[in-house]
Amino acid sequence: MPKVTEEHRVARRAQIVAAARSCVLEQGFHKTTMADVIAASRLSAGAVYGYFKSKEEIIGAIAEDALSNVDELFESILDDDTSEPLQPVAVLERVLHHIIVIAERPGGDVTRIALQAWAEALRNPAMLEIAGDKYRRLRSRFAEVARRAQADGTIDAAVDPDHIAQALFGFVPGFMVQRLLIGDVTPESYTAGLRAILR
Amino acid sequence: MPKVTEEHRVARRAQIVAAARSCVLEQGFHKTTMADVIAASRLSAGAVYGYFKSKEEIIGAIAEDALSNVDELFESILDDDTSEPLQPVAVLERVLHHIIVIAERPGGDVTRIALQAWAEALRNPAMLEIAGDKYRRLRSRFAEVARRAQADGTIDAAVDPDHIAQALFGFVPGFMVQRLLIGDVTPESYTAGLRAILR
Repeated sequence: MPKVTEEHRVARRAQIVAAARSCVLEQGFHKTTMADVIAASRLSAGAVYGYFKSKEEIIGAIAEDALSNVDELFESILDDDTSEPLQPVAVLERVLHHIIVIAERPGGDVTRIALQAWAEALRNPAMLEIAGDKYRRLRSRFAEVARRAQADGTIDAAVDPDHIAQALFGFVPGFMVQRLLIGDVTPESYTAGLRAILR
Repeated sequence: MPKVTEEHRVARRAQIVAAARSCVLEQGFHKTTMADVIAASRLSAGAVYGYFKSKEEIIGAIAEDALSNVDELFESILDDDTSEPLQPVAVLERVLHHIIVIAERPGGDVTRIALQAWAEALRNPAMLEIAGDKYRRLRSRFAEVARRAQADGTIDAAVDPDHIAQALFGFVPGFMVQRLLIGDVTPESYTAGLRAILR
């Protein structure tokens, strides 16, 4: 038997996740079945189940993929060792630009998947747990930004950084919803409005 | 035949909309059919079709109901004739409190319906049109707030009020998503974070 290399495993796993993404974009989470994902992946049922035991596991992998990119972005923001103080709105602008880049990648707009996931989480406890976990983690990155900005003196140090993280994180769904349902927002117009309020 | 009074019509219509709301909360927009709504309303099919010709019309009525309350709120904010200059974050705090009041009303949390509607709008052009129209209208109220705050000198008058409205409106979905999926935000914690960024 040929030895399955790690590279091969990673590629196969990505193939399944991509297939699941296209199924969800086409018919939503609720209607997507393991059989749909298996058919779309062009792999055997055995091969797919070797990587993921359930639809929920694949959905977790889709979310993980999308967020691992955002994690990298936060690392580059927080590791930035210039002497400039950290400006939270500048961070938010970088996050929004990053969302556009991810959304426009071939293989489907993951922000559309996020909106589907929110709806599904309200009717499926397993999905609610996945979404809650991922968003708590993402929001904790904004809390790190808040603490750094507090240390840099650009945000009031007396305010709970978790509350600041709620507000910073809270801009992101509002951007995604307007972009997908109204279609006229850009990172520039949104942060211009924000800066005017912040003045 | 007894004369159907206007009061009777309004009550019947509300009964149908409430039935549709409970169906959507239970099984989502996609799976809800006119037959489900008719059964839940305890009216005859003929009676229900006398008010609404399609599921999309009922969904429009649910959205209209939720937004008519928000319209009243904006009117009271904009008609406020005190000499105090309008503070956008104070407006936002009132909007968030209002959302909690609406969400906690008997008959089901309409913010859960909103999240379902966003997902459905991505797969149903009729729903996308309804959602786009309603949100454009709601956002135009935030643009009025922005213009008023610009006249009062609390927001930079050089910035496009439509961009300010994007940012103000954008806080609301972020609040709803965190409240429903993570569960730890309150209007107070969210606006405390916001005020810290705005400082």
